[in-house]
Amino acid sequence: MQYQDNFNPTISDEDVFGQIVKEKELIGYYNLASCDTSAYKEYASSVKQKNIVVMGIGGSTLGTYAIYKFLKHSKKLSKKLYFLETTDPIDIKSKIERIDLNDALFIVISKSGTTVETISIFKYINSLIKCDKHNTLVITESDSKLNAYAKANDIKSFDIPKNVGGRFSVFSAVGLVPLSIVGIDIDKILAGTKEVHDSFFAQGETYSRVVKKARFFVENKSCFNINVVFSYSSRLEGFNKWYIQLWGESLGKIDVDGTKQGLTPIGIIGPIDQHSFLQLIVEGRRDKTLSVIKVEHFDNNLVIPQIKLEGLEELDYLDNIEFSSLINKQADATIECINNLQDIPCDVMTIDSVSEKSIASLMYEYELLTSVCAKFMYIDAYNQPGVEAGKIILKQKLKTAK
Amino acid sequence: MQYQDNFNPTISDEDVFGQIVKEKELIGYYNLASCDTSAYKEYASSVKQKNIVVMGIGGSTLGTYAIYKFLKHSKKLSKKLYFLETTDPIDIKSKIERIDLNDALFIVISKSGTTVETISIFKYINSLIKCDKHNTLVITESDSKLNAYAKANDIKSFDIPKNVGGRFSVFSAVGLVPLSIVGIDIDKILAGTKEVHDSFFAQGETYSRVVKKARFFVENKSCFNINVVFSYSSRLEGFNKWYIQLWGESLGKIDVDGTKQGLTPIGIIGPIDQHSFLQLIVEGRRDKTLSVIKVEHFDNNLVIPQIKLEGLEELDYLDNIEFSSLINKQADATIECINNLQDIPCDVMTIDSVSEKSIASLMYEYELLTSVCAKFMYIDAYNQPGVEAGKIILKQKLKTAK
Repeated sequence: MQYQDNFNPTISDEDVFGQIVKEKELIGYYNLASCDTSAYKEYASSVKQKNIVVMGIGGSTLGTYAIYKFLKHSKKLSKKLYFLETTDPIDIKSKIERIDLNDALFIVISKSGTTVETISIFKYINSLIKCDKHNTLVITESDSKLNAYAKANDIKSFDIPKNVGGRFSVFSAVGLVPLSIVGIDIDKILAGTKEVHDSFFAQGETYSRVVKKARFFVENKSCFNINVVFSYSSRLEGFNKWYIQLWGESLGKIDVDGTKQGLTPIGIIGPIDQHSFLQLIVEGRRDKTLSVIKVEHFDNNLVIPQIKLEGLEELDYLDNIEFSSLINKQADATIECINNLQDIPCDVMTIDSVSEKSIASLMYEYELLTSVCAKFMYIDAYNQPGVEAGKIILKQKLKTAK
Repeated sequence: MQYQDNFNPTISDEDVFGQIVKEKELIGYYNLASCDTSAYKEYASSVKQKNIVVMGIGGSTLGTYAIYKFLKHSKKLSKKLYFLETTDPIDIKSKIERIDLNDALFIVISKSGTTVETISIFKYINSLIKCDKHNTLVITESDSKLNAYAKANDIKSFDIPKNVGGRFSVFSAVGLVPLSIVGIDIDKILAGTKEVHDSFFAQGETYSRVVKKARFFVENKSCFNINVVFSYSSRLEGFNKWYIQLWGESLGKIDVDGTKQGLTPIGIIGPIDQHSFLQLIVEGRRDKTLSVIKVEHFDNNLVIPQIKLEGLEELDYLDNIEFSSLINKQADATIECINNLQDIPCDVMTIDSVSEKSIASLMYEYELLTSVCAKFMYIDAYNQPGVEAGKIILKQKLKTAK
């Protein structure tokens, strides 16, 4: 038999790589991995206030929160970071009551410059304290209305590049400026992103891992339409939220065929949610992939003490085990249990430590993974046309409210 | 043509109701709606400590946290509630540092009495401060090892009835005792559950709503395998987490045919996640139902002030709008946008206010909904066999660790 075929149901790895390299000239986040931080650090070192209050929503806060939440108890930070994002009045009030507004820097972050929630909250803050160049910073696009406000009031501002989308903006001024102000080493953050960037674009280890994973997720999306990130550290709760936005908003799209695509992200915290969500994973419908994240070194020697509790001697085998060992053994037990089932796709990422570099590497790799998935799915990862209709309806409702 | 059929692909509403009525004799949570609270209140009024530290995980804390988080900023509470649940050492350490242990009551909650995480943390607390009858309370099953510990040390304990599962236990001592101690009116909570209970079992409005919803979810589960709860109040974040456990762990099961069933719960916070997850809902694959929760009265008059911000005059239409109005208009805009698409199943629950009764009614109705879904799916809502394998593996790993 002679035989030929052109079976190539999907794009090749090399094709995807070529597309990403080309896209890198247009889409700004790729190159944030090695951006110049001197202006950020200079500004940060000039900030005297102890309370740093970020006003923003979605991509303007989630990445910063992810890094801050991961690191804040492991670093000696000189200042506290607060996030005002929700329009829930009870939440706004209770959060503001805890902040000394006279010793606060207000950072207003909005890419468009006219985000309803952010400006509403900023107006409210203005009714409590005078916001001016001494206690206010703006991070926005250069030609936005918010920047016009900053200029009119001689308020310092940093730009969000036009070609960097909100959910991909954590390594721009959006994330780096607030983090630098509270004392996080943003050069170490960028060292993490650069390592991943270089490995990917040199088609090294990161490239192989990311492309393999993206291909698997996309090729099996009809069956496994849910991607669960199972983080074995409570400190990764912010990362989970950031991942959910990145994944959901980037990959929930109508593709070139007019088909509604979408991989649904779920983020859970291992040591808590293995008492909740794990049952569903183990015995529920096979519609989920699992990505477990472990932290190798917690740099914390908290130990279960050797204390006798009469009646509970059965649990004395716990004595002298470090909590960091317990949590990682919990992760290993879950992974082993999943692998024994042999029908749940599962990968395990172990990050080194609770450090700037570890979290930044993880996040940058997830950004790359998102971009590569989008290529395989023939969708645009960087827009969000689906939320515009709701915004227009809201504006109408608000304008006719009075 | 003469014609007959026995088409009845699924169980009838009346059959399900009959099964639930029968089950009510065996499964304890149904009758918690009208349990006697006098012993709980008596104990609560005797507590002198200001810091109430609950040690527990999953069903031992999620329901309590849901109610506490919903109410804590709207009630004048005399004490603070803390939850120690994760084994993450950084989390344990940072939480404990914030608590005055000398003015703390430690409540150890574990249905089995031998939950590894809970006892590990309790042992650690014992190394920091002497835990005895003056500052410790136990909530567990009557014949557990933890109760043996309590008896041996003359420590007060409350029972968790054998026939009340952890994730259905919020209206037992598990939830009511800690909530009563911090000053929440647990009789108002039970007034909420009782109203829903009575309406359901009299086959009133609640019954119709719950059975219709459960039937829809189950009959369409092949297509819509994800159920999103979209809560338009940040105060419902705890409710979302509780719902995720209740739904995931109850409905992720192997059914009588040996088929892996499971409806996947997702909980999102409206005013934040409409900047994140909404894109996926609108343009992503049609695999999700949506349940929007609104709060009618926030009992909070925080208003967007009439303040001019030069450059941002375009947003002056926001002036004088109350935040509670803004958040509800955001919800309405989202609902309208979803309904306009005409292909996303969506229901809207509007609860009255930020009150004990509102949150309790909502939670009890979700418990009923879960039970009814389980009947339609031919599964047991009350066990969790899928997590046992992991527990056994963990125990082996820990015992051989030394």
